[in-house]
Amino acid sequence: MSNCLFCKIVKGEIPCHKVYEDDKILAFLDINPINIGHTLIIPKEHYESTLETPDELIIYIATAAKKIAKAVLEITGAKGCNIGINNGGVSGQIILHTHWHIMPRFRGDGHELWKGNDTMYGEGEAEKLAEKIKNKI
Amino acid sequence: MSNCLFCKIVKGEIPCHKVYEDDKILAFLDINPINIGHTLIIPKEHYESTLETPDELIIYIATAAKKIAKAVLEITGAKGCNIGINNGGVSGQIILHTHWHIMPRFRGDGHELWKGNDTMYGEGEAEKLAEKIKNKI
Repeated sequence: MSNCLFCKIVKGEIPCHKVYEDDKILAFLDINPINIGHTLIIPKEHYESTLETPDELIIYIATAAKKIAKAVLEITGAKGCNIGINNGGVSGQIILHTHWHIMPRFRGDGHELWKGNDTMYGEGEAEKLAEKIKNKI
Repeated sequence: MSNCLFCKIVKGEIPCHKVYEDDKILAFLDINPINIGHTLIIPKEHYESTLETPDELIIYIATAAKKIAKAVLEITGAKGCNIGINNGGVSGQIILHTHWHIMPRFRGDGHELWKGNDTMYGEGEAEKLAEKIKNKI
């Protein structure tokens, strides 16, 4: 897509700090990291989100994510990481080109997941919902 | 693992609201959802986190995640979702058995990702870090 920031990075029109590249994917440091070593993995081909990305490419990104995450942890000394995949603007996805976040985490780094109120199911509600989802898969 | 909560769910010793099951994986509603329809996908075999899970199982979970997420969105009417994979206690992983969160999101649901201060790279720091990670992959 001509006006997609990540497509421009793939084409080399916008610079990035690459950590991995092959014919299918590119991984580079997030320009606005939550912690040092925060890395993005993107397919070179443009898909709006992971839910629109073909399975064979998802498989490729998923196995690369494990490999890249291990390298990020080793180099940064982080003891764990979050892998985050946002799908759609409502979820916080800013660039509408599939990307997986690898976010190394450090004790006391101050980041908290999922600030906001939790949800409670009413009596029998979870059971009905699970059944409906099951029937859609 | 005998004292793992998710292994007990797999064995049927603890109940859950199943949305999907086959010989390799199980998906069920999170008991403490961030939103209605928040689903967990776990491998039936015990691995501490996704980083310790064999590639063939990660591939299986990743393609199932796309399929299950689409069903969750359709049933809940959510316009997007976050897929979250926490690796290690420091990242917020509570149950040390591989699990992928599918979290449907709704406009105005009040959830915010990554509360905490962002990090800034010093002059030339990102370049050096990217190079080090690259050499570890």
